[in-house]
Amino acid sequence: MSKTFFTVGPSQLYPTLPQHIQEALDKQIGTISHRGKQFQSIYKHATDGLRTLLSIPEDFEILFLSSATEIWERIIENCVEQHSFHCVNGSFSKRFYEFSVELGKTAVQAKAEFGSGFYAADLQIPSQTEIICLTQNETSSGVKMPVSEINKVKSKHSEALIFVDAVSSIPYPQFDFSVIDSVFFSVQKCFGLPAGLGVWILNKRVIAKAEAMLAKGIKTGTYHTIPSLLSKAKDFQTPETPNVWNIFLLGKVVEDFNKKGIEVIRKETDTKAKMLYDFLGKSSVFTYGVTDAALRSDTTIVANTSVPSGEVIKKLEAEGLVPGSGYSSYKEKQIRIANFPAISIQDTESLIQALQKHYA
Amino acid sequence: MSKTFFTVGPSQLYPTLPQHIQEALDKQIGTISHRGKQFQSIYKHATDGLRTLLSIPEDFEILFLSSATEIWERIIENCVEQHSFHCVNGSFSKRFYEFSVELGKTAVQAKAEFGSGFYAADLQIPSQTEIICLTQNETSSGVKMPVSEINKVKSKHSEALIFVDAVSSIPYPQFDFSVIDSVFFSVQKCFGLPAGLGVWILNKRVIAKAEAMLAKGIKTGTYHTIPSLLSKAKDFQTPETPNVWNIFLLGKVVEDFNKKGIEVIRKETDTKAKMLYDFLGKSSVFTYGVTDAALRSDTTIVANTSVPSGEVIKKLEAEGLVPGSGYSSYKEKQIRIANFPAISIQDTESLIQALQKHYA
Repeated sequence: MSKTFFTVGPSQLYPTLPQHIQEALDKQIGTISHRGKQFQSIYKHATDGLRTLLSIPEDFEILFLSSATEIWERIIENCVEQHSFHCVNGSFSKRFYEFSVELGKTAVQAKAEFGSGFYAADLQIPSQTEIICLTQNETSSGVKMPVSEINKVKSKHSEALIFVDAVSSIPYPQFDFSVIDSVFFSVQKCFGLPAGLGVWILNKRVIAKAEAMLAKGIKTGTYHTIPSLLSKAKDFQTPETPNVWNIFLLGKVVEDFNKKGIEVIRKETDTKAKMLYDFLGKSSVFTYGVTDAALRSDTTIVANTSVPSGEVIKKLEAEGLVPGSGYSSYKEKQIRIANFPAISIQDTESLIQALQKHYA
Repeated sequence: MSKTFFTVGPSQLYPTLPQHIQEALDKQIGTISHRGKQFQSIYKHATDGLRTLLSIPEDFEILFLSSATEIWERIIENCVEQHSFHCVNGSFSKRFYEFSVELGKTAVQAKAEFGSGFYAADLQIPSQTEIICLTQNETSSGVKMPVSEINKVKSKHSEALIFVDAVSSIPYPQFDFSVIDSVFFSVQKCFGLPAGLGVWILNKRVIAKAEAMLAKGIKTGTYHTIPSLLSKAKDFQTPETPNVWNIFLLGKVVEDFNKKGIEVIRKETDTKAKMLYDFLGKSSVFTYGVTDAALRSDTTIVANTSVPSGEVIKKLEAEGLVPGSGYSSYKEKQIRIANFPAISIQDTESLIQALQKHYA
């Protein structure tokens, strides 16, 4: 039996994926050269589509790497001489912070309790900070940083570069690209693709910083330094043989998203989020994982559960519906429910009905 | 019309791929968690299969990264304090050497002309060398380093770690794992998979070197340091969300290879190589790209062509057969023909007949 996965990544494949995979087979996409014209048009189709979908300005570059985890590393290597600042409110923002420490930088963190988040006004950011790392959507805890708060951070710290991890929320948030310098995501979350591709969007300030570090003789890597990536991206290529298959599929799903319309996707996301949070508000078994309503994620709904999550998942899985467990030490204490474009309003309704039936 | 690709990577998909992709869709492999039991068994299935196929001893680890290009970088970062040595006889071995330079190491190269190669007796390897980097099969030039020569390098330099790039030849070469310390490959060559996965095989000496460098406080990376990779590999996982889809497909193709038998695969490779080299030896249009018969690749057959390769490819492509062009500045002067397991004896026969017909 085919199940509907509400897990937050890897997650439910977007419904059109099987037909795009068939097309990839028919067109022998797994075989074509990554230095040929056909690949260049696949690359351009994907980046043009993303530019439309997310309203990315022309002066931002779009690069393909192997994962968002890799992008964390490349950001620190390419853009931090010494001082990075991190808002840490969950396991993934913590890992990003740790990468900076492991690479020998002076990393400063603002720390929030698991399930809490940040307002710009509360942040004490050291003046020598070169980059500010914000996690717009913490996949582990279900806490978001509202875009309005991200914008306020920038207005108080105009010199530092602002990097936004939106791994599990893009394309939902409407970022102001005059404010942020870079944002990145992976395709196995809201785009409903198999894992194995990270997308890095960055502006000329980021490029200038990477070039300045290289000019100073700082070692910033090899094939995936920003200048190396750009030298190929200008020809719609990558330095290495990339995950061609996934770049093709991403372009196809982005085309589907654009046909549907980003406003419709955002509206449906709002509708499903409201359904899920309304249910949690009334439940006697589940409670909000995030107390502050303004910081509750739109795309990763987290709930505390008084019944161990393993039992909940087992019961629902028998009906073909698979919610995610809590993250790490919260595994049994929480459930996480993806609110991604691959999940329809009807799917969400079915999940809520099943939860209500078993846990009135 | 579906074409048969003799390009050397990405290359012809292995014929069973469509059915394995259908199985991946049916089993929702694109959706499953990379922290769950199902993924662990997929990981184990792939590594167990590779162990059988390549006779990899139990004390060697098998790790998954995003590409062989990434593996070059991780080798230098993790295993070179200062001194690396490289046999450079083509574009890919040169790039590996350059990675070491870019990371600030003292990299020494032995250089052979394009189309030439190395014998162990000719190498002058400095005594302080920490790692020796050998390219068993140069995809750009079609030059191999025979396994017997690799073994001689080791006997003369027992302290240095030996890393072997076998990106476009594995599973053909029969390596002696008591001699080499590490070997690596990508899946889009002889395994006939879509690109986006590199496989790194390494022994305890390599691990000890990486650990010793970390213990000295040397920065060796973040999520893909060898200790970080191993901490997850022991549970059949990876630090990041990997290309789950490709790990699944690799396990399936390796299973096919094992059913067929490695000896049959090697024998067929020998047969096809002989057919192609015999043809080149008699041709008036094509000549051997590699003069020294002992150094001619078994899996990547390169020929000089007196007719521009673009014309040759165009003519053959019209008949559904696609040889590869030469590499970089040799693009028009050479053709490259993959002799990978996805290409049958019949396919090779068809290619030779077409070449004979047009270029008698």
